[in-house]
Amino acid sequence: MPKRRYVILAPGEFAQNAKTAHGVIAYGNDETVAVVDPARAGQRVRDAVPYLRSDAPIVASVAESLAYKPTSLLIGTAPKGGKLPADWRAEVLAAIGAGLEIVSGLHDMIGDDPDFAAAARAHSANIWDVRKPPEVPLFTGAVYGVAAPIMLAVGNDCAVGKMTVMLELARAAAEHGTRAEFAPTGQTGIMIAGWGIAVDRVISDFVTGASEQIVLEASRRNPDCILVEGQGGINHPAYAPVTLGLMFGAAPDALLLVVDPKRTAIDVYDTPTLSYGELVETYEAICATVKPAKVAGIALNTHGLSDERAREEIARAHAETGLPADDVVRFGPQKLWSAVAPQLHKRAPLSAEVTA
Amino acid sequence: MPKRRYVILAPGEFAQNAKTAHGVIAYGNDETVAVVDPARAGQRVRDAVPYLRSDAPIVASVAESLAYKPTSLLIGTAPKGGKLPADWRAEVLAAIGAGLEIVSGLHDMIGDDPDFAAAARAHSANIWDVRKPPEVPLFTGAVYGVAAPIMLAVGNDCAVGKMTVMLELARAAAEHGTRAEFAPTGQTGIMIAGWGIAVDRVISDFVTGASEQIVLEASRRNPDCILVEGQGGINHPAYAPVTLGLMFGAAPDALLLVVDPKRTAIDVYDTPTLSYGELVETYEAICATVKPAKVAGIALNTHGLSDERAREEIARAHAETGLPADDVVRFGPQKLWSAVAPQLHKRAPLSAEVTA
Repeated sequence: MPKRRYVILAPGEFAQNAKTAHGVIAYGNDETVAVVDPARAGQRVRDAVPYLRSDAPIVASVAESLAYKPTSLLIGTAPKGGKLPADWRAEVLAAIGAGLEIVSGLHDMIGDDPDFAAAARAHSANIWDVRKPPEVPLFTGAVYGVAAPIMLAVGNDCAVGKMTVMLELARAAAEHGTRAEFAPTGQTGIMIAGWGIAVDRVISDFVTGASEQIVLEASRRNPDCILVEGQGGINHPAYAPVTLGLMFGAAPDALLLVVDPKRTAIDVYDTPTLSYGELVETYEAICATVKPAKVAGIALNTHGLSDERAREEIARAHAETGLPADDVVRFGPQKLWSAVAPQLHKRAPLSAEVTA
Repeated sequence: MPKRRYVILAPGEFAQNAKTAHGVIAYGNDETVAVVDPARAGQRVRDAVPYLRSDAPIVASVAESLAYKPTSLLIGTAPKGGKLPADWRAEVLAAIGAGLEIVSGLHDMIGDDPDFAAAARAHSANIWDVRKPPEVPLFTGAVYGVAAPIMLAVGNDCAVGKMTVMLELARAAAEHGTRAEFAPTGQTGIMIAGWGIAVDRVISDFVTGASEQIVLEASRRNPDCILVEGQGGINHPAYAPVTLGLMFGAAPDALLLVVDPKRTAIDVYDTPTLSYGELVETYEAICATVKPAKVAGIALNTHGLSDERAREEIARAHAETGLPADDVVRFGPQKLWSAVAPQLHKRAPLSAEVTA
């Protein structure tokens, strides 16, 4: 599939409030050729968000962006209030009118909007609502035949940086000449990779099947290994079923534990987070009932701590588990990748003697 | 809510192929006043299926059934081939025309069929597609405030008899003067109880929320205890996420382990079933990370074994776990209920010191 050339729609919001857009620019497989934000028109991306190191122009409208030959309009940020305001709608229609693909992470499906749907038909423009899962089969077990080792990110909570860790490790792998395929399971990861399924939107009976299909698709890209984006947390009172869906459906050979040590309670609940030891034990014990997988390393999210405190916490994670541990954002992903990579080898699922 | 008076549609299939219909007649809160099966018209239910001990008439058509003043038509069995044949469609339309509610467990939603939907509007007939989940909120934690003790059925596989065990225990409880509310989580359970949510059809992010809502509804019925129908199995490669959704969402105070000892592999997969000890350990360890719950007893499904072999297997389950064990279908539910009931008391969820 040819790479997309994105124009990103983020009117008034690009600098502050567009984390998905930043992720796509920083990690994306596809190229961002322009950003629409009238408030910053005339600047470059690096002027608005220095760490992104991109010279893509910021323009005032989709019409202006066409000079940079985009193939797709990306709506990666939700407008305040949830509903698309009139000026955003006009820009989406302008993009459809120019035959651009619309890639949307909005809660309300672009394809379900009668005006957008009619315009897309009239102009043969494709609409990809990334939150809308495709039809997937039930779990088949085909994932057990995938040749490349599979590593799944698991965590002590949701929103601790599991996606970023896997993207950083994939980058480190590439520097070692290893083709690590990032397998996206959530909205931002999907926009970054340009493919994937939002597993938390799949009907619960099919969440394992969707997870399996994601790994099968990653496998078709002939990688040396597959790094599966994680979701939720195994003792998350609301989202743990999605986590388990990935553990059984993606059928990992190894786990990468991502921990924000500053969390003491899960998400919005009172449920305490688990200790390093409890996390390793719980994740491994559950995997052991279907296909064994061990935790290969621990990535800490020490954002907000001093370098000294971060090093202490990393040392503690290592001391309590014996596992390699690091913060791949603060200290770079190379060291953790080098420690984890030798542990990536295929494991077999359990199999009953009677049917084997 | 007034009780329904069901006419059950099962043309040509009532005796052999209508397990949901049998469940509704045997255990239902609502009354079955007639069955439509032209092949057995003139017989009574007990003639076709002796164990049901019901004198409800079997008639040739919905039109004939109206003499018994039904309020609702129940379609509890899927026609061969999956699609509704013409003569079934005519009977459904006849029921709608008579103003009956349509209660359907079919995969294809009756309410999504334009002809049925139009007829229902014209005759003010209600359609309840029980597989179609309602809109539910995310998990809130409100279930932790439920006053009645909650017991959840968990198992060594799907389709081992978890629903039947809970219905039998509810019946035994009633004989002790204890009001045990059966909380349905799957299609047949919903038809039997007349309410509930098919949790396996809910979007995966919401499966805990749906499970919580079921328990909250059961609680509003002022029971002495709540017996939650289980689904799947904790090491089911496809359905374990639904199982975990019930474990965290229904927030049980106790677990009732249902085991078919004849199973050696899970469902259609090669994954070996877990031993009694592994099952107790795995279920309790996972519950312990959010809200602790212990296995209160083991219900065995010894169907197909001799009485002697059944007794041996029950003794083995007890010896390996120290827990009360019995087959509530073969030997009646009284003994297991008497052993389990004293263990039903409220437990608190874990709670973090920082937020408590």
